[in-house]
Amino acid sequence: MAEIIVAPHAGFCFGVKRAVKLAEESSSLPGKIYTLGPIIHNPQEVNRLREMGVNPLTNGSVEEGSVVIVRSHGIPPDRERELRAVASQVIDATCPYVKAVHEAVCRLTREGYFVVLVGEKNHPEVIGTLGYLKECNGKGIVVESAEDLKEALRHERVGVVAQTTQNEKFFKEVVGELALWVRELKVINTICNATSERQEDVYELAPKVDVMIVVGGKNSGNTRRLYSISKSLNPNSYHIETAQELRAEWFKGVNRVGITAGASTPDWIIEEVKEAVEKLCE
Amino acid sequence: MAEIIVAPHAGFCFGVKRAVKLAEESSSLPGKIYTLGPIIHNPQEVNRLREMGVNPLTNGSVEEGSVVIVRSHGIPPDRERELRAVASQVIDATCPYVKAVHEAVCRLTREGYFVVLVGEKNHPEVIGTLGYLKECNGKGIVVESAEDLKEALRHERVGVVAQTTQNEKFFKEVVGELALWVRELKVINTICNATSERQEDVYELAPKVDVMIVVGGKNSGNTRRLYSISKSLNPNSYHIETAQELRAEWFKGVNRVGITAGASTPDWIIEEVKEAVEKLCE
Repeated sequence: MAEIIVAPHAGFCFGVKRAVKLAEESSSLPGKIYTLGPIIHNPQEVNRLREMGVNPLTNGSVEEGSVVIVRSHGIPPDRERELRAVASQVIDATCPYVKAVHEAVCRLTREGYFVVLVGEKNHPEVIGTLGYLKECNGKGIVVESAEDLKEALRHERVGVVAQTTQNEKFFKEVVGELALWVRELKVINTICNATSERQEDVYELAPKVDVMIVVGGKNSGNTRRLYSISKSLNPNSYHIETAQELRAEWFKGVNRVGITAGASTPDWIIEEVKEAVEKLCE
Repeated sequence: MAEIIVAPHAGFCFGVKRAVKLAEESSSLPGKIYTLGPIIHNPQEVNRLREMGVNPLTNGSVEEGSVVIVRSHGIPPDRERELRAVASQVIDATCPYVKAVHEAVCRLTREGYFVVLVGEKNHPEVIGTLGYLKECNGKGIVVESAEDLKEALRHERVGVVAQTTQNEKFFKEVVGELALWVRELKVINTICNATSERQEDVYELAPKVDVMIVVGGKNSGNTRRLYSISKSLNPNSYHIETAQELRAEWFKGVNRVGITAGASTPDWIIEEVKEAVEKLCE
């Protein structure tokens, strides 16, 4: 019987818990209820909410009079104004840590910094934050790879923030590199605690186990980063969305299995995975 | 015959050139002429100036009416006041880039930051800068190794500067680490250009040659750092002060020799070393 260790900070973070709770509560409101895109990067949880009458809006246009839930990633302010003009009610489930990034880019702008946002260019959170940067007449770029830094090096005063779920190691590299090149650098570390803790768990756990299972949506950036950290430490790392993807051969002759999960993975899925791993290790 | 490559930025930097020039010019002044400690970290150059009547002050007490030269490293402001009360003239040869560090720590203090000065605790430049930090009622620490960082992590807002001749790689590490731990970080990169260029030369040159010679005072921090970078890239690296220290066996069967020198090494010493290496490679 193998030992199965679930990382202490696996699964839902504060912002996701809050967003799901707001979505559940809104299910009793009159009218059609939409979330702007899937409420979290987890297809299974999105289905559970759909059964409660909360549907992800996919084509982008909101019906007059419906209830709209802004998910934890947040949205650009002009999009929010559009929604408020049409919807009967806008429920803002933007994670407070994401709101802090919106404030940070505007503060850096007021202080005269060119903004570097360390994050994924196409991530909804980043798109929302860029909207706030534009709103406060700031200038800046998104840095997704070292390559993207070039543009920032032309500026003398650079202010750095991060997508809340960024990889700490990459953030550290970007900041270190910028510090050498620009005259003045200001850094507001907006990586949320839940992200740091979850990544630290992987650094701790992955080298100690024979197999490491990372659970979370394939479209979830923070889960993909957990997987990439895990893979770099332990080649027997697997990224799955559900227990059904587990394969018996991964667990042959295995003594210790580690499990972690992205911020958008509900506890019930982690529990299912754990039980399935237990069976496969019997 | 081996190829001998002298690094393009080897030797005297702007601040050292300026200080030596001021010392030479002051040699014609009436009265005794002192530099506060050796004008540069290079015993040979100090001897050359001694012959011109400019003597390093070793015991610290200045004779009434003498001329005192503050060397490029700078001094704490209270020490400067003491000197002005006694000396007939104080010639301030503090490097302008060092003055910029003095200003930076006070600016960070005014802006409410706890100051981290990346540097050597016992280096005269660092002692001078700490004097300015105290003068403007600032609080801060010197970080010489990763270990020293702990104290800074207890502060929410941290401002970072560097000794002008710091190792860029270490500076980058310190900044990256701090960025992950403190809420707000401001970095003013005060490593001088000459230091960056000299270090980049070594990264470029050391891996390409069979033997790397680093010339400079054994008591010169910036030379020791060049040597340590060189040694990490090429085990056949040697730190010497003068051509007399070169050993024939270092150059047996060698095709390419690299030479670099710290900021306080005069050209005539580099030239002597180059000629001696040529002879040993014949």
